[in-house]
Amino acid sequence: MYINKISGYVPHDRIPNDYFKNLNDLSDEWIIERTGIKERRKASVGENTHTMGIEALKVGLESLPYPKEEIDLIVGATYTPYDTIFTLAHACQHFLDISDIPVVSVNTACSSFLNAVEVVEGYFATGKAKRALIVLSEHNTAYSDEHDKKSGHLWGDGAAAIFMSNERVSNVDLAIKSVSTGGAGNIGKAPESVYLRPANEGFKMPFGKDVFLNACQYMAKSTKEILEKSGYSLEDLTYLIPHQANLRITKNVAKNLNLPEEKALSNIQYLGNTGCAGAAIVIEENQHKFKKGDLVVVTVFGGGYSYGAMLIEC
Amino acid sequence: MYINKISGYVPHDRIPNDYFKNLNDLSDEWIIERTGIKERRKASVGENTHTMGIEALKVGLESLPYPKEEIDLIVGATYTPYDTIFTLAHACQHFLDISDIPVVSVNTACSSFLNAVEVVEGYFATGKAKRALIVLSEHNTAYSDEHDKKSGHLWGDGAAAIFMSNERVSNVDLAIKSVSTGGAGNIGKAPESVYLRPANEGFKMPFGKDVFLNACQYMAKSTKEILEKSGYSLEDLTYLIPHQANLRITKNVAKNLNLPEEKALSNIQYLGNTGCAGAAIVIEENQHKFKKGDLVVVTVFGGGYSYGAMLIEC
Repeated sequence: MYINKISGYVPHDRIPNDYFKNLNDLSDEWIIERTGIKERRKASVGENTHTMGIEALKVGLESLPYPKEEIDLIVGATYTPYDTIFTLAHACQHFLDISDIPVVSVNTACSSFLNAVEVVEGYFATGKAKRALIVLSEHNTAYSDEHDKKSGHLWGDGAAAIFMSNERVSNVDLAIKSVSTGGAGNIGKAPESVYLRPANEGFKMPFGKDVFLNACQYMAKSTKEILEKSGYSLEDLTYLIPHQANLRITKNVAKNLNLPEEKALSNIQYLGNTGCAGAAIVIEENQHKFKKGDLVVVTVFGGGYSYGAMLIEC
Repeated sequence: MYINKISGYVPHDRIPNDYFKNLNDLSDEWIIERTGIKERRKASVGENTHTMGIEALKVGLESLPYPKEEIDLIVGATYTPYDTIFTLAHACQHFLDISDIPVVSVNTACSSFLNAVEVVEGYFATGKAKRALIVLSEHNTAYSDEHDKKSGHLWGDGAAAIFMSNERVSNVDLAIKSVSTGGAGNIGKAPESVYLRPANEGFKMPFGKDVFLNACQYMAKSTKEILEKSGYSLEDLTYLIPHQANLRITKNVAKNLNLPEEKALSNIQYLGNTGCAGAAIVIEENQHKFKKGDLVVVTVFGGGYSYGAMLIEC
C-alpha cells in the first residue's frame, strides 16, 4: 500500500489558552504544563465535520497524480459526526461526484486513522479497490463542553485526507510496510474514562489519568512491535508520530522507547487534540523533511480503548 | 466466508400504531397503508445501542460452535450510537473480554450490515482475522422525534449478531458467495432526504419519497447484479431479504424483479424500521425455513445514500 498524497485542513479561528483563563480560571502556564497546548483551532459557524473533510481533500486533489475519477473507495473517519446517516464518507462522495464506489465511515475514536487504513488494506486485498481516499475529520468543539475544567481546553478541530493506492504511483509515495490495530475495550476504565454520548451525557473525560497511562503504554508497545515485526529496531526509526492527545504523552512515549525527543513529531502545541485527524496532519506538515528511506512510525491510541501502529518507509 | 451463527434481540416494549393516533392523529389504517407497520419495539430506560447489541450476541454465544476466545475481530455497526468513543465494537469487546483483537465500528446508515460484511471480508483476505463478530444495533427511539408526523412512527429498536468464519465450521453454516456495496451519496436528495445530525437538527426525513424511489431502484438493481455475477438468475432465488424500511418498498422491489411476494421476507410489520439490524433479524427469524442449497439475497439501501447485496447459499 502506498500513500500518494496527504493533505490537511484546519479552521481559521485560533483559540488561545487565555480564553480558558476567562472561562474556567485555567492559566496559560497551567494548561501548557499539563498538556503542551498553547492554542487550538475552532470551526466557524457553517463549518462542520463534512465541510472540513472536504476542504482537506480539495487541497490534496490539486496535485493528485491521477484523475479523481480513479478513486474507487472512500473511507470516512470521525467520532464527532455532523450526520450519522449522510455520513462523512457519503459527503465526500457527493463532493467528488463519483458514482457506485464503496463508501463507509468508520470509528474507533482517536485511533480511527489506522483502522481506516486497515479497512483500505482489506479492500485492496480482495481486489475490490485500487485507489482509496481516507478522510479524517473532527469537529470536537461541536460536542465538547468548553466550561468543563477537566477537558474543555484540550480539543481542537481539523481534518486530513489521505489518497492511497495498492501499487506505487510515484517515487515520492510513502510506502506502508505494515499496519496493525487492536482493541482494548476490556482494559482499565475504557467504558467511562472518556465518552461522547450524543443523546445522553455529551462529551466528557472524567478519568483522564487512566487514558494517559494506557495511551503511554499502548503507543510505546505498538511502536516496538511494528518495528520488530518488520525486522527493524528502534535505532532504525527516523521519526515517531504519536496520536496528538497531550504533549506529555508524546514525551513519555519517546522516553519509554529511549528515543530523543526531537524524533517525536507534534502539532498539539498549536492545534490541540484534533482526534483521529491529528497524526495525519503531522505527516502532512512534516513530509517535506522526510528523506528517501526514512522510517516513520505512526502510533495511535483512542478512548474506548483501541490502539495501533503503522510503519512507513519514505 | 461463512455465517456460523446469527442471533437477534428486540426490546420488550411494543408500541402499537394507536400510540401515534393519540400523539399525531395518524390512524392505524393510514400507517399500515403507507408503511405496512402495525407495531414496533422501543428500548426501555437503561437500554441502549450497546446493551441491545450485547443481548443479541449473548443469544448467539449460547450455541456458538467454537469458544468465544477464538473471535479475532469485532465490527460494530450503528447510526444511532450510544457512545462514539467507547463505541459499539469496544462495548462488545468489553463484554466478551477478549484482548488485543481489532475492533472497529462502521456506519453507512441502514446499509451498514453489508459494509460490515465487506470489512470482515477484507480482514479475512489479509489473514488478519479468521473468526469475526459483527454486531448491528439501532436505538432509533433515542434520536427520533415521535411527534414528527412524517417519520416518527417508522422507527423501531433492535439488534443482531453475526458470527463469521473464513472457513466452513459446520454443515448448517450459511455460505456467503458474494457481497457487494456501493455509495450513492451523489444521487438525488442524498444529503438531505433523511438525516441524523446529533449536534444540530436531530433525526428527520423531510424527503421520504426520494428515499423510497431510490431504495426501490437500487435494491432491485443490486439483487439482479449479485445473482448475475455469480452465474444465477432470478428464477434460482429462494428468498429475497430487503432492508426493512417500508413494506411497500419490499413489495415494489419484488414486483420489479417479477418475484412472487411470498419470496420477499419481512419483519417490518411488527418491528418497524430497525435500521441496519432489520435484514439480519429477518435472517435469524427465517433460518429454520432455509433448506440446503437455497439461495438467499440480502439487499440493503441506506439513507445517505448507499446500497448493497449479498448472495447466501444455505
